[in-house]
Amino acid sequence: MASDTLHRRGLMFILSSPSGTGKTTIARRLLDADAEISLSVSATTRPPRAGEVDGKDYHFVDDAGFDRMVAEDDFYEWAHVFGNRYGTPKSHIRAGLKEGRDFLFDIDWQGTQQLYQKDAQDVVRVFLLPPSIDELRRRLTGRGTDSDAVIAARMERARAEISHWDGYDYVIVNDDIDACFAKVRGILEAERIKRKRQTGLIPFVRDLLKPD
Amino acid sequence: MASDTLHRRGLMFILSSPSGTGKTTIARRLLDADAEISLSVSATTRPPRAGEVDGKDYHFVDDAGFDRMVAEDDFYEWAHVFGNRYGTPKSHIRAGLKEGRDFLFDIDWQGTQQLYQKDAQDVVRVFLLPPSIDELRRRLTGRGTDSDAVIAARMERARAEISHWDGYDYVIVNDDIDACFAKVRGILEAERIKRKRQTGLIPFVRDLLKPD
Repeated sequence: MASDTLHRRGLMFILSSPSGTGKTTIARRLLDADAEISLSVSATTRPPRAGEVDGKDYHFVDDAGFDRMVAEDDFYEWAHVFGNRYGTPKSHIRAGLKEGRDFLFDIDWQGTQQLYQKDAQDVVRVFLLPPSIDELRRRLTGRGTDSDAVIAARMERARAEISHWDGYDYVIVNDDIDACFAKVRGILEAERIKRKRQTGLIPFVRDLLKPD
Repeated sequence: MASDTLHRRGLMFILSSPSGTGKTTIARRLLDADAEISLSVSATTRPPRAGEVDGKDYHFVDDAGFDRMVAEDDFYEWAHVFGNRYGTPKSHIRAGLKEGRDFLFDIDWQGTQQLYQKDAQDVVRVFLLPPSIDELRRRLTGRGTDSDAVIAARMERARAEISHWDGYDYVIVNDDIDACFAKVRGILEAERIKRKRQTGLIPFVRDLLKPD
């Protein structure tokens, strides 16, 4: 009997960073490399586009359905975006956590706060920092076609996000994408071994302690 | 600037398990593989044996010195063993933690409690479980030269230790020594990335947030 075969509760793995710090690359690599973690699927009132699959890309609901989910407190958080509503449904994620599935959240500090306030025990918060302010500016400058004012506004937003670094459990300075990815993966694997998540240990230890 | 080069506070890494569960092998491999962690050095009133080095094998102190350390509350824990006294000195470990060195403790549940009560923030508690009760009995039976009563007493002690499994942060079922070692090492590496230990992030982020 290996630890890996014992039942465990899943976790909510949050990756945050200012834009230009490699978060999207790391998130995609993690999803590719690890079959036990998937992106959380949002609910939306936006109509499906060609090729989008209900339950995979989004949970497509009508306005009445979304209203009902709000009324039943089924969202970790929700927001209006361009006339449609988007939200992270609790019931879907909680069912997955119970089955031992992990969920990746590529969200900012505000979203992190909302998740943490509702499910602190299941949340693991990881923040990526740029290696230096010059490197951040270089990454946010892009192809050099943007005005100074646009770049200054991006830098401002990045700094606002960085200022919340101390609301995270783990912090990684991303100066090398491979090393950063290895660390993110290592954190996920270690968190899975936490006693509190390994619900299957309770019957396992009960058996070990049975008198002969 | 990589995370690895920022200053961090060290940690106290506790490995516990019932005897016969591979703890000593894992501890030795960890000390061999990782230069940043070392065994904590005990203080003792026992005279040095041939080849033992003061400050490396033990901190050798006389009775008056040991009394003074007890009076100054310089022990995490101490005990009489065969007419001599042994203890884990705080001041030495706390100085090391400040410098970013980690300490490995191969101790039982009682010692774990004592360390945790005094320095919870710096302590990481890992417990190893045997894969099954039959495998534990096999390992504790040894060469078959011990009486049933001796083996039964060993099983009793092992079960008493296992009963404290829920006082640990991480639990690993050791059914494969290589996989178990990889997990232990992964836990140590992830714990080092915890924000609270990375004291060097405070000035680093202050620099990132400096206005242009």
